[in-house]
Amino acid sequence: MENRLPPPAADTEGGRGDDDLLPIRRLEISDYTKGFVELLAQLSRCPPLSDADFRARFTDLAALGDDHVICVMEDPLSGRIIATASVFIERKFLRGCGKVGHIEDVVVDAAVRGRHLGQRVVQYLVEHARAAGCYKVILDCEPDRRSFYEKCGFSEKSIQMALYF
Amino acid sequence: MENRLPPPAADTEGGRGDDDLLPIRRLEISDYTKGFVELLAQLSRCPPLSDADFRARFTDLAALGDDHVICVMEDPLSGRIIATASVFIERKFLRGCGKVGHIEDVVVDAAVRGRHLGQRVVQYLVEHARAAGCYKVILDCEPDRRSFYEKCGFSEKSIQMALYF
Repeated sequence: MENRLPPPAADTEGGRGDDDLLPIRRLEISDYTKGFVELLAQLSRCPPLSDADFRARFTDLAALGDDHVICVMEDPLSGRIIATASVFIERKFLRGCGKVGHIEDVVVDAAVRGRHLGQRVVQYLVEHARAAGCYKVILDCEPDRRSFYEKCGFSEKSIQMALYF
Repeated sequence: MENRLPPPAADTEGGRGDDDLLPIRRLEISDYTKGFVELLAQLSRCPPLSDADFRARFTDLAALGDDHVICVMEDPLSGRIIATASVFIERKFLRGCGKVGHIEDVVVDAAVRGRHLGQRVVQYLVEHARAAGCYKVILDCEPDRRSFYEKCGFSEKSIQMALYF
């Protein structure tokens, strides 16, 4: 896990450390070789994907344009993806043909947690949803993640129900 | 509210009443004049939509094909939409490029609640998600709806967080 990120730096003039300088960008095809799938495996069951399967799913999602965005943060030293999250925009009839952003699959590499990278990727997607005209952004999480999402500006709203096939 | 549905009938040989015979179908453009938008207003803020706005949103969603389905139940006597629910299919990388069904906007006309029409529209969408290859279906609801969704086969899984713009 060495050299995954620059060592924590003293705050800069703007009061921001080096982590704030790491750019966030949209997922690219080339992220297949940068540990994106392996990072998702830290969140849920995520078996390795073939290059063809990755490309096929990437193409499916790219066809949705701004209605489905996966953002990633890449460690410039290791060239590995160290944080990711996704949002898809649901179009409704209610709320005057309103839109809702659904955030999914937020994960930060275990080796670099505690540096607020999760907040940054969530904020990136919240801003995307806002710019897309959503009236709200929602997500489901375990109760022990409540305080993290409260720091991101979210409030507990209801319960999630699930049916597994 | 008279004549919205046939009067409750004695169970048929199969043990099913008339409500079970009401067909469920996908939303159609002509449902604009059948009270679909007014029905959604029983669930959330849903101001009237112009015919053009309704058609535009309908077209947006139709372009998603089987990845976004709104189902409706029409009262054959009144010609009004009395129940609806929607599901969209999210495509992921995790779970071997898995898919998740997200159920939204479940509403039954207040005049015909208690006849299990809600269970039927939810079940219709669950079966759609299953046929589409989803590994799970999820939804968010108020805690007082937990028992209803348990009857539909769901279990409480986590919490929903929301950020309103």
